[in-house]
Formats: sequence, structure tokens, C-alpha cells
Amino acid sequence: MTNTCDLLLTNATILTMDERYTRYAAGAGAVAITGDSLVAVGPYASHFTATQTIDCGGQALLPGLINAHTHAPMTLLRGLADDLRLDVWLLGYMMPVEREFVNPDFVRLGTGLACAEMIRSGVTCFADMYYYEAAVAEATAAAGMRAVCGQTVLKFPTPDADSFEDSLALARDFIITWKNHPLIVPAVSPHAPYTCTPEILHACAALAAEFDVPLHTHLSETLLEVENSRRDYGMPVVPWVKKQGLFEAKVLAAHCVHIDEGEIRTLKNAGVGVAHNPTSNLKLASGVAPVVAMLNAGLNVGLGTDGPASNNDLDMFTELHLAAILAKGITNDPTVLPARQALAMATRLGARALHIGHLTGTLEPGKRADLILLDLATLHNSPTFERDPNAIYSQIVYAAKSTDVTAVMCNGRWLMRDRALLTLDVKDLQLAAGDYAKRIDGFLIKREESVLQKLIAIGGAVEQESFEVQAKVRLADDAKVLEVIAGDAVSVLRAVHYHEFDTYFVFDDPAQGRLRFREDEFINAQGEVTNTRTRLTLTGAQREQKAGSVLLSRSRYLAPATHTLRFYREYFKPTTEREIEKDRRRWLVVFQGEELFVNLDRVSKPALPGVYVEIKARTWSRRDADHKAVLITELLARLGATAKDTVQEEYVDLPA
Amino acid sequence: MTNTCDLLLTNATILTMDERYTRYAAGAGAVAITGDSLVAVGPYASHFTATQTIDCGGQALLPGLINAHTHAPMTLLRGLADDLRLDVWLLGYMMPVEREFVNPDFVRLGTGLACAEMIRSGVTCFADMYYYEAAVAEATAAAGMRAVCGQTVLKFPTPDADSFEDSLALARDFIITWKNHPLIVPAVSPHAPYTCTPEILHACAALAAEFDVPLHTHLSETLLEVENSRRDYGMPVVPWVKKQGLFEAKVLAAHCVHIDEGEIRTLKNAGVGVAHNPTSNLKLASGVAPVVAMLNAGLNVGLGTDGPASNNDLDMFTELHLAAILAKGITNDPTVLPARQALAMATRLGARALHIGHLTGTLEPGKRADLILLDLATLHNSPTFERDPNAIYSQIVYAAKSTDVTAVMCNGRWLMRDRALLTLDVKDLQLAAGDYAKRIDGFLIKREESVLQKLIAIGGAVEQESFEVQAKVRLADDAKVLEVIAGDAVSVLRAVHYHEFDTYFVFDDPAQGRLRFREDEFINAQGEVTNTRTRLTLTGAQREQKAGSVLLSRSRYLAPATHTLRFYREYFKPTTEREIEKDRRRWLVVFQGEELFVNLDRVSKPALPGVYVEIKARTWSRRDADHKAVLITELLARLGATAKDTVQEEYVDLPA
Repeated sequence: MTNTCDLLLTNATILTMDERYTRYAAGAGAVAITGDSLVAVGPYASHFTATQTIDCGGQALLPGLINAHTHAPMTLLRGLADDLRLDVWLLGYMMPVEREFVNPDFVRLGTGLACAEMIRSGVTCFADMYYYEAAVAEATAAAGMRAVCGQTVLKFPTPDADSFEDSLALARDFIITWKNHPLIVPAVSPHAPYTCTPEILHACAALAAEFDVPLHTHLSETLLEVENSRRDYGMPVVPWVKKQGLFEAKVLAAHCVHIDEGEIRTLKNAGVGVAHNPTSNLKLASGVAPVVAMLNAGLNVGLGTDGPASNNDLDMFTELHLAAILAKGITNDPTVLPARQALAMATRLGARALHIGHLTGTLEPGKRADLILLDLATLHNSPTFERDPNAIYSQIVYAAKSTDVTAVMCNGRWLMRDRALLTLDVKDLQLAAGDYAKRIDGFLIKREESVLQKLIAIGGAVEQESFEVQAKVRLADDAKVLEVIAGDAVSVLRAVHYHEFDTYFVFDDPAQGRLRFREDEFINAQGEVTNTRTRLTLTGAQREQKAGSVLLSRSRYLAPATHTLRFYREYFKPTTEREIEKDRRRWLVVFQGEELFVNLDRVSKPALPGVYVEIKARTWSRRDADHKAVLITELLARLGATAKDTVQEEYVDLPA
Repeated sequence: MTNTCDLLLTNATILTMDERYTRYAAGAGAVAITGDSLVAVGPYASHFTATQTIDCGGQALLPGLINAHTHAPMTLLRGLADDLRLDVWLLGYMMPVEREFVNPDFVRLGTGLACAEMIRSGVTCFADMYYYEAAVAEATAAAGMRAVCGQTVLKFPTPDADSFEDSLALARDFIITWKNHPLIVPAVSPHAPYTCTPEILHACAALAAEFDVPLHTHLSETLLEVENSRRDYGMPVVPWVKKQGLFEAKVLAAHCVHIDEGEIRTLKNAGVGVAHNPTSNLKLASGVAPVVAMLNAGLNVGLGTDGPASNNDLDMFTELHLAAILAKGITNDPTVLPARQALAMATRLGARALHIGHLTGTLEPGKRADLILLDLATLHNSPTFERDPNAIYSQIVYAAKSTDVTAVMCNGRWLMRDRALLTLDVKDLQLAAGDYAKRIDGFLIKREESVLQKLIAIGGAVEQESFEVQAKVRLADDAKVLEVIAGDAVSVLRAVHYHEFDTYFVFDDPAQGRLRFREDEFINAQGEVTNTRTRLTLTGAQREQKAGSVLLSRSRYLAPATHTLRFYREYFKPTTEREIEKDRRRWLVVFQGEELFVNLDRVSKPALPGVYVEIKARTWSRRDADHKAVLITELLARLGATAKDTVQEEYVDLPA
């Protein structure tokens, strides 16, 4: 009895990319496919009777490439801004444009464009992380590609959620909806340790574990991230996220540029998959990941393009080539990361890094039929040597181009044949993308005058926690305040005393917000100045959201003031300036289990009578903000303040 | 009166790549060409009356790219051997194959193949360095490309010359023949400081100066080169070659990976052009050149692919991309080497580095018409943003591929239109290249079969006298030996004392023999190490021919071990290794009128009891061997050795 199959691919040089790098010369084996799966690979397959047989004409037949980390919809932002500092690029261009433009339509279109580009360059599967991830999943499934789709969670408001609670709810819905799709593996994506709270990391890991889906995040991308982690938590990033329970989930960690030997062991023990993104890491000057050490430790390290806004394309052949040569150049050893190992990163190891090694990544019976055909008889790959069995990997990694891919199949379905895309209309996608580009260009040109834009352009601006909960009262004297601070109702965690000199830059257009240059002189018990600090704070205009006598504010950007007041005056060209000078005693206290700041101010410029008491808290969560507003109101009552004592204005707005 | 021209190119986005990066939007200017030259570029050109007008359909029109360093004929060795140490790759594969195969036919064919590939990827001009450079020049001129062609000079014999005097004579003839060619600029190429004598460097510089042609060389490619220069001459490479008068010529220096700030200034003052080869430098693990520092110093730094055997292609778009991102990653600054500066390296600066900036490198009236058309409306370059004037450079450097080049003109002649090559037949070239590949494969396969052939391939192996007559005995102590040596029976001609460290490479096939890497530390009377020596010895398998207790051996090859143990390990790939360590006192004595060697050994690894005495002689004559066997037996008796003390095995075969 003869075995049968739907489709037989014959006369190809077959690279299975299995553990033993089994390969079959052209004519020495075949690939038999039935439905969505491989049923036989090699000489045995040659004897199958097939409904359809395709002669591959001596091309190389290998597993479809796996792009282990990207943000597919960002094709629509490709080339928007380059050769900039990371913070200027991210905070000055990417995030503002995303806030304005990202919606399900944008995401679907960008994903379609990305899928077309990836299919053309031999990618059958990718790991994504973005907003409105359901739209990414829809567009990917429509294109016929496989993907691990991660719904992003951040502590900031995002284009698709006002708070992280909303993001988490979105992620849960997304996972439930897509859990059993044949092409899409839903995932949750806490963006990065530094953009998430410990609470978010815990919640994401629990969610991923609950549904047994991957968790896709950024880890140790920049040196700054590691330095901040050491400063804030006394340890580098990997042990810290481990402590937050992140590794309870099946994690795919992108970048891992700045990790040490111990962290590599931790990742290995936790079964974490890694996505190495050499182009992005170089272009954004993040550094060079210790790929050889990670591979030697047995980690599943895949290769990714990262988003097309930081790459600027989705060409896995570029990453293959760069991964192989960069590792050599950086370790001073030309024998490391040989070609076939690089190709394994883009196939077998990549699939495992995504935690879908059982589905794809090699040409082995039982796995899905995800494969590509590659023409190696090109001008730029002539001649061909046969002596060294590794020569074909060398051809693919060191000389082949993505344009040498002639055919792509995913899940048993042809997505491209003879270089013609079968599931997407490129012209339509390009036209629609062009429309978005025009609108984005217009938006940015209009924003050229923005103070925030200019603040960001000089670097260092970080968005503060979204919700500042604050209340201010004027009292006749400080007696009652000092009594409460010294009493049992609160416990003091920290106390400081300083003189604060504020200069407010005010602009014609109130929508620009106000920029404060603030200089603090810290004062010790002897009344001596021990230290100074300067800061810029941009406060957005739409800050007023009342909750009783408490204000909830948004849009607050902080930057260290590394230049002089004169510099900023000339740089920002404010319409007017106002100065405030005050003496401040400041306590961090715990009141009914919550941390609150209490400021006791005497304003000397302009000279204002009495003392002012401000009680403040910051949080990322709207619900938490409401809770803290109640506590602040209660503490104010203990200070003897009544509603009539409430001061709504900022000092700068008080009449002198 | 209207201006006229032969050809007008309209409706292209024109990037002139001149000093001010002048560019014209599609429709806002044209390029007018007459004969081999540009006569007008920009809005003024739009009003020319032309014999022929071509609508460029909105494509980008820019100067042809300049590949500032390559070895074009090495396309025929592309992918032959990869992921190896530089010395194994060069001495083990490239040089032996070149010695066997390089001739004018090989060079013409390889250059034709290289030109086809370069034209396809937008290159109009390259700087070459190889053997039979006249054949390179012929093939290049036939393909219609521009090139600076350097005839190589080395202190070793080369495929085209038996001595460096012959090479220099070849170079002189070559320069005289090609001096006034419209496309070819002849040059002389002393290969590198470490492969040339000071005399060669002087002579090359004088030759180049005499004919006012460029001198193209490799400079400071590896750290080893710099360390050796410091050790041998007390200074790094650049000051040393300056001292040899090299900079009397117009120099194009490839690589410059390991140079300091002072050397950069020296290069600048000497008007040296630099070719940066990022792919080759990473792939061969040479390091990363200080490109940003060189550019900041005002050096003309071009971009090169290096030879296709170390790259493995000739794709300048890969180099553009890599140069731009690698500089950022290495300097931790994402703003350095912005896209347009990278493109300048591949055009204007490259032409200047080759000392032909007056001919090509920018689109300016008076220069030769060397230009390309590039389709930026591709899927992988969609969408397009207009806000940032640098966005188009970003598109070209970060997302365009060489396959986006649609048309190439050099010296006013179309070499490619609509992606069709007009001066070369690719199929013919590929077929002929395939024939060479088969022959080279065969040559290497035959060589790989034999350890002796591999030893000979890396040079220096000499066959020892055929007959080694030797006997070895084990004694309890050295008393009797020292007594005989000090006595009258023998007269001592020479005495040495050393520690010997042997590593034996053992192969699966015993017919291959055994290869010993031997390191001797010579010890003086005070017990201090005064000198060291390393050697390779290949001992054939069929050594056993007994004559009493004396062995006669054959097939012994000796070579100085000029490389490290690690080199030989990777090159010969032994199945196993065994180590022997011993203390040896060795005398050359005269006994009954014949010279014999007496070795007194204590073996410490493995720790063997007692002492071993070897008595040896070598000869070409069988009869003489028999005579010496008798003498050796007699001398052994005087040492008190009996037949039972005889040791037949080599140390490496003794049980530990």
C-alpha cells in the first residue's frame, strides 16, 4: 500500500533545520504535506503518492523564518524620524504620533503592510507586541501568517486603554477570544519592567499562566534600564522581574542586551526565550547582546527585526547576516556563531523562544507546513561549492538576500508563489499607508511649535505618573500641622527642608501648558545650604479634574535642568515669566496605610500671609487616585482645615 | 538660444550628494548629459533640448556607488570556506587555492562576475587589488565600469610573479599600459606592511609618485598587525609606513581598524584616503574601525565590501546600512553617522578616497555621468514621509535593498536599464564560474584526504632524511649515561638541555600518520629558559622496519610551527589529541667515527618512572642505516642496557 498526501515538493535541497541539521540533496528526498501539516520529509517522502506534485527546480527548501520580535503596525511609522537620541525618538516622535493616530484601522493596515513585507522575505511566523492587538491578529490571520500576538500593558495610558486596569482587561478578552485559533497564539505583553509597576508584572504573569499563553516583554534593552534597576531595587533587571513573579509565565524576552552570566543562567533555568535584535540594538545604540554566551548556555535565542520604525524594515536576511558577523566582530573570534547556527536562530530556536517549537521551526513530520523556497543560483551567490557541507548555510547567511525567496507556505497554504503574493494586495496597502503618512507629516509639522516637543528635543523628559492627587489649604500658622506630624496619626518616613526658587515660563497659547524652572536649596538642621537641585516641569493645560476639594492632574513632564535659566529662556522664548520663592518643609508620611507627601510652605515672593499646606500623592491608577483623594480630605480635616481654607490656584496664579 | 545635450533625465528626485547635499524634488530639476559627462544638474537642466529624454518616473537619481576596496576576481572563491580563523582561512584555503588556480583567465572571469553583481547593486566604480591586474582592468573596461586597479606586490612569490622584483616590473608595465584609459586608473598595491619589506614599500611609493597614480594597500587591519609593528619597530603601523615613505604617494588605505587619534591626524595630513569595510571587519573578527573619529577629523572615508571571499557578496547597500548602524552601536550614540553621511561615504567621500573625486562621486556639471536610478516606492520602503528633508537618505540607507536599483550609467553609457544588464552575459559567467568551483572543490577534497597535503598546503614542510635509525631503552637512573658521555668512548660535539611539550594530533584513519606540535624551552646552566622553538612533525604510519632492537622509520615531514596550536587544531581537525611533556638533555656525539644523537629523557606527563635514553641517526641511505643500527646497538651496550630494557613504543603510545 502506498502512502498518500495532498502535496509533494520534489527536487529541492531540503534543510530540515532539525537538531542534527539533517539535509537532503536535490533529488534525494521530498516533502509530503497533507492539510496543514508535514507528513514526511526526506527519502521516505519521495515514495508518497500525491494529489499534486511540485518540482522545486533545485531550490533550497527550508522552514519559514521566524521573526521573534516586532511591532508590526509600526510599518506606518517607518522612516518617520531617524538618527535621533532614543528619548527624543520615542517621546518626541513615536509616542505623540501613536497617541494621535493609533486605532484599529491603523493597526490593521500597518499589520497588513508588515505581513506582505515579511512574506516576501520568507517569514511565516512572528512575535508581535502592540496596541489593539486583536486587530493585529485579525490582519495576520487574514494574510495567512502565524503569530504570537501580545496585547500591550503599560502603566501609562495607551492608545487603546486609559489605565493599566483597562489594558489588562483588554488582554484577558483578547486571550479568551483567540485562544484556539489555528494561526494565532494570543499573549500578554507587559511592555518593560521600567514602564510597568510590580503590580502589572504580577498580574500579567498570572494572566499568562492562567491561560497557558506566552508573555512577551522587553528586558534589559539599555544600560540605563539596568543602572536604574540597580539604583532603585539594588539588583539588575532579570533578578528583579524574577522577584515579581514574571517567570511564572512562559516568557519571550526581547533584547537582553545588558545581562550578565548569572542572569543568563536565571533565564535558562526559567525557560525564558530570548529575541535578539541586532539591527535595532545597533541603530538605537543600545549595545550588543551577549548572544554567544546565551547560546552556549543553551538558551533558545531567536532573531527579530524589532519594529520597522527602529530598523527600518522587516528583513530577516539582514538580521541573519548581522547576527552572524556581529558576534564574531564583538568577541574577536571569527569561528563563533557559524552560519548554520545563525539560521537555527531564525528557525528552530526562534520557534522555541516563542514557545511554539512543537508547531513550527523545523521540517519534521507532524509539524505545521511552514516553509519557504529560496533560489541560491543567483548571480550574487555564484559559484556554489559542494566540498564543505556547511557551504549552503554560508550561502544563505552571508550572500543570499530576502529577494531570493520565491515561495512561502504557512500552515499548508501558499502565501507566495513565483514571488507573487497570494493573500494580500500590495498596491492597496501602499496607497492607504501613503494617506496615513501625509496626515502624520501634517500633524508633526503643526506640532513644531509645541513646548513639550521642544522640551523633549533637548532630552531627559519623562512623563510622571498620570494622576497627581493634590489638595492645598491656607492656614494662619503651622502649629496644628507640626502637631499632627509629630503625633500618632501619621508616621514620618522622610523629612526635608529647602528653599525653592521657581521661575514659570508662560506662553501665549494656554494649550502649551506652563514650564517651571525650579531650583531647590536643601537646608540642614543648622540652617546651612547642603545641596541644590534644578528641575524643569511642564504641566499640561487640561489638569483640572475635581474630586471634592482634591485635584487630579494629568500630563506632567519632568526633566533635570542641566542648563541655566538663561539657556531655557532663550530656548523656549516664553511670553512672560513669573517668579515664586518659598520656604518648604516636606514630609513623606504614612497615613492609614498609604504614603502621602505633606508640604508646609511659607511664600516670600510674592509675600503671602500665613502658611500653605499641600498634601499630594501620585499614582498610575484612576481607582487608586480616587481612594487617595478621600484620604487626603480626611488628613486635611485633622489639620483643622475646612472647605473655606481650600486654595484651588497654584501659587503662581495667586494674587500677590 | 537653447542649450542642447544628448540625454535628459527628467522626473527624478535628484540627490546630487555634493558638499551641501543639494537635492531636487521630482519634477523640480533634471540631469543633462552629453557624451561621457554631466553638463547640467537641477532646474537649469530642465530647459535643455535633448536628443533623447527619459522620464524617470519619480525614482531617486543619485551618483553611482563607489566600492572603495575589493578583490573582484575572488568572486570565484566566494563561500569556499567560512567561519574560520583569519589565518586558517587565508593560509589554509585562499592562498593554496590561489597558487593552484589563479591565472589571467580566472581573473577575467571572476572580474566579469563581480562587475555584473556590482552593476546590479548600483556600483559604477571600485578600487581593486589582485594579481594579473591587467586582466582585471580588461574585464572591467569591457563591462563599462570605472575602477582604480592595483597590481599587487608582496615579498612572497605570487601567482603572477616569482619575486617582488618581478611584481614591481609587472606593476610598472601595467601602469604605463593603462595610464590614459577613460575608465581605468592603474595603481600599485603593496599588499600590506607586514607582507612587504621596507624596500618594497619605498619602491611602490616611488613608482606611484613617478606616474602620479594611487597606491592601494591594507593598513592596520588586525590588532596582531599593530602589536607586531610595535614589537618589531617600536611604533604602530601608520608612523612606520610613513617612515618608509609610503605617503609620498596618493594612498588609499583599506581597513584602518586599529589606529589611534595621532595616526588619524597623520593620515589626514598625508591626504590618505580610507576604505572602511564593516562586513569584512566583523566577519573576520578584525574589529570595528573608528569611523566617526576619522570622519570628524576630515578624512575621506569611503565604504568597501572587501573581497567576496570574505564578505561574501559585493552589496554596497549592506555596507551602507551596516556602517551607519554599527557606528552608533559602538559609540553608544544613535545620532552619529546619520544616513546622509553614510551615503556620502559610498559616493563623494569614496571618490575622494580613491583620489578620483574630480571625475565621479557627485552629480555636478563637468563630472563623468556615473549615476543610478533607485525605486523607493517599494513595499519595504512604504510609506514615505516628507516632513524631514533627511527622510530620503534614511530610506536609502535603512530600508532600501540593492535589488531596488533599476538603472546604472557609467561614463555616459547605460550598463543596466529596467534591471537588465547591457554589457555582460550573466548565464555564461555563472556557467564558467561553476566549472571553476567544481575543479576547486576537487582540488580541496583531494588535499583534505591527506594530512600531509594539508601540511604542505600551508607551506614550509620539508621531507626529512628517509631513514631515521633509532633505539630507545628505559634505565633506572642516568648515572651510567652521564659516565659514558663524560668518558673517552664518545666525543661530544654539542650539548643542549630543554623541556619539550608535545601535542599529538591523532586521526581516525591511521594511514594519515600522526602530527606532532612540539614546543621546546631551551634551558641554560642556571636552569633559566633562554629560548623557545615550535615545530610540526608528521610521522607516516609505515615506520616499523626492525633491525634487531633498532627501528628504521620513513616518511617524516618537518615544518616550522609558525602558528599557534589552536590554529593547527582548527585546520587539521584531529580526532583526538595526546600530550607528552619531558625534560631532555641531548648530545651530538661522535662514536666510532659516526655522528649520533643521544637523548636523555625524564617524562613528566604522563609521569613515567626512570629515565629513557634514545640514540638516533638519520640518513638517506639504507646501507648506511644498517651500519648505524649496528653502532647504536653497541653504544647501548656500553650504557648497560640489555634487550629487555628496549622500548619499542613512542612515548605517546606508552601506558601512563
